[in-house]
Amino acid sequence: MPPAPARVGDALADVDTPALILDLDKFESNLRQMINTTRAAGVRVRPHAKSHKCVAIARRQVAAGAVGVCCQKVSEAEVFVAEGIADVLITNEVVGEQKLYRLAELARRYPNARIGVCVDDVGIARQIGAICQKEDARLDVYVELDVGQNRCGVIDASSAVAIAKAVVASPKLTFMGLHAYAGSAQHRRGVPERRSAVLAAARKADEVRAAFRASDIPCEVITGGGTGTFAYEAASGVYNEVQPGSFALMDVDYARNEPDPNAPRFEHALFVLATVMSLRSAEGNERATLDAGLKAFSTDSGPALPTFPGWQVRSVSDEHTVLHRTGHGPQVKLGDKALLIPGHCDPTVNLHDWIVAIRKGVVEAVWPVDARGAVF
Amino acid sequence: MPPAPARVGDALADVDTPALILDLDKFESNLRQMINTTRAAGVRVRPHAKSHKCVAIARRQVAAGAVGVCCQKVSEAEVFVAEGIADVLITNEVVGEQKLYRLAELARRYPNARIGVCVDDVGIARQIGAICQKEDARLDVYVELDVGQNRCGVIDASSAVAIAKAVVASPKLTFMGLHAYAGSAQHRRGVPERRSAVLAAARKADEVRAAFRASDIPCEVITGGGTGTFAYEAASGVYNEVQPGSFALMDVDYARNEPDPNAPRFEHALFVLATVMSLRSAEGNERATLDAGLKAFSTDSGPALPTFPGWQVRSVSDEHTVLHRTGHGPQVKLGDKALLIPGHCDPTVNLHDWIVAIRKGVVEAVWPVDARGAVF
Repeated sequence: MPPAPARVGDALADVDTPALILDLDKFESNLRQMINTTRAAGVRVRPHAKSHKCVAIARRQVAAGAVGVCCQKVSEAEVFVAEGIADVLITNEVVGEQKLYRLAELARRYPNARIGVCVDDVGIARQIGAICQKEDARLDVYVELDVGQNRCGVIDASSAVAIAKAVVASPKLTFMGLHAYAGSAQHRRGVPERRSAVLAAARKADEVRAAFRASDIPCEVITGGGTGTFAYEAASGVYNEVQPGSFALMDVDYARNEPDPNAPRFEHALFVLATVMSLRSAEGNERATLDAGLKAFSTDSGPALPTFPGWQVRSVSDEHTVLHRTGHGPQVKLGDKALLIPGHCDPTVNLHDWIVAIRKGVVEAVWPVDARGAVF
Repeated sequence: MPPAPARVGDALADVDTPALILDLDKFESNLRQMINTTRAAGVRVRPHAKSHKCVAIARRQVAAGAVGVCCQKVSEAEVFVAEGIADVLITNEVVGEQKLYRLAELARRYPNARIGVCVDDVGIARQIGAICQKEDARLDVYVELDVGQNRCGVIDASSAVAIAKAVVASPKLTFMGLHAYAGSAQHRRGVPERRSAVLAAARKADEVRAAFRASDIPCEVITGGGTGTFAYEAASGVYNEVQPGSFALMDVDYARNEPDPNAPRFEHALFVLATVMSLRSAEGNERATLDAGLKAFSTDSGPALPTFPGWQVRSVSDEHTVLHRTGHGPQVKLGDKALLIPGHCDPTVNLHDWIVAIRKGVVEAVWPVDARGAVF
């Protein structure tokens, strides 16, 4: 693991580059807004740890009032449970004996932790039940309902009921309810589009809950919602838990959503710090090349963008970003450092081993990205 | 660091997913072709280690006849030099006191290693000289010449000569020659376009070499060339060293180049293994969701593509890839494993901690990606 790019007390300008920077004032403001909004709506918040992959951040989220965190992978859950986050929901299917035994082993080793997992296949539900029985491990199980993401999840109430019955029949499993994440709604730009997608998702979840009730299956939790829509899930009267992740950090893509005046506005707290490593100053063709590229930020939602005006991203390659000055940008010189806002926070964080947490320009902490690379 | 996804002797089907797979027969064939071609052309080959970031691979490249490796970052060079790769060229500018002291410290600690670095600014050349003097460290220095990449490098002979003079004047620095990498030519699809871009680059490099000669500055090495063009640099009569990286692994993007019948054809040796974790089998809408997404492969050059026909990538998200069956694809079931070819090998390798090296379907070795995350 590469050594940390900064020490506590360093000035931002002394941090080695490229480095992942977290502005603590902004991060704390984002967290406060999330806690206040969900508390006022009377729903639980379980922030998604796939965005930050950082135990220090998860601890702050739980200390502020989150019920626990979400993960996407067994190997992520292992990291957070081992570090004392005692309530972790894997908002994803886990398939294959190898991974299921690993999950059961985690639950067996930490009997006081609540560990949940999603299922969208009745055969897998039975297999999890059998493995947990054999391993003497207890798991919470949620049915994933596809509410428009077109990725995983069952699409009809009868499949959901069949899975729930298989879960209820397994003595080591606790059936908890529905995971109904409207993923494709998160980045619809208009407020009405996001809101109506969530209303449709909530209606569908409510129908499935009614089918559970008709089969005498209690459905304690309906969980879902991301940074783009959580306020609508919270207000739906159907969801009682929301799972936003990116709100803690933010990125260019989420900031492109039309803001809802009745929902919190989260600020950019996450940046990539880069150094100007090559410069060309010919009049009318000023070019600054930064020492951060595809290995320092993900470009699936566009490149990381400079925080200062008048410079545009011309190209991104593995280790470089080339900026061009449009005429009104500030002059830069070799060795200058620049903050960039990542296009998409989750895969950007996963590229880094360290988060350099700063406050008012000074390094306050350097946190490992504990679950970096935990893809299994 | 996450535990390795496989053990020696495992069958491919037993490897945990998502995992990076290297087909050793293909890898060795690619290496053999590269060594034979460059040997026949009478040029040295210095494979770029930014693609594989793996000491085990670098050792095999050097054992086969490579003079050493290229790196892009000081922190990468640290990894390879410490593991015994004794000739490393950083094909990139290193800017800032912190990084330059770190580079000098590496050279001081390994006085028997040859370590080279690129410069495109006379002030930086003088600074490197001063720091090496102070630290009693010796470095090779190359001027980077911009031959169409529009990223780093000087654009004219007079700047190159000024830098070379500053290097020659520094007792601890050895001026080696020119780094002239035609990066933007690598993925021009047509053979004539790639060849003519390299001819132009070689002409420019030759002009600068003449300017060095006119100033009595010896220019021992002209180095450049990637997987898409190295055969043209090798045949140019100007370049005497080539730096291809991706040829060892290959990817979808390089395979889209029009093949040159007179140059070697490299085979896909690198794959991402994924598991079918969710399945929908409705007639005419068959969907398989894999457990590998943006955190298991880079999408800057398009998504990773399945190695089997009849399934198309519908969407990629952080931890998922959704495939749709077009009608003639094979049937799949939950838990099936699929090999994908990465769109772009370099940033894909950098996402993984392990390379699972297989031969004829059996795991022969599991290698750490030693310089994974070495972005500094």
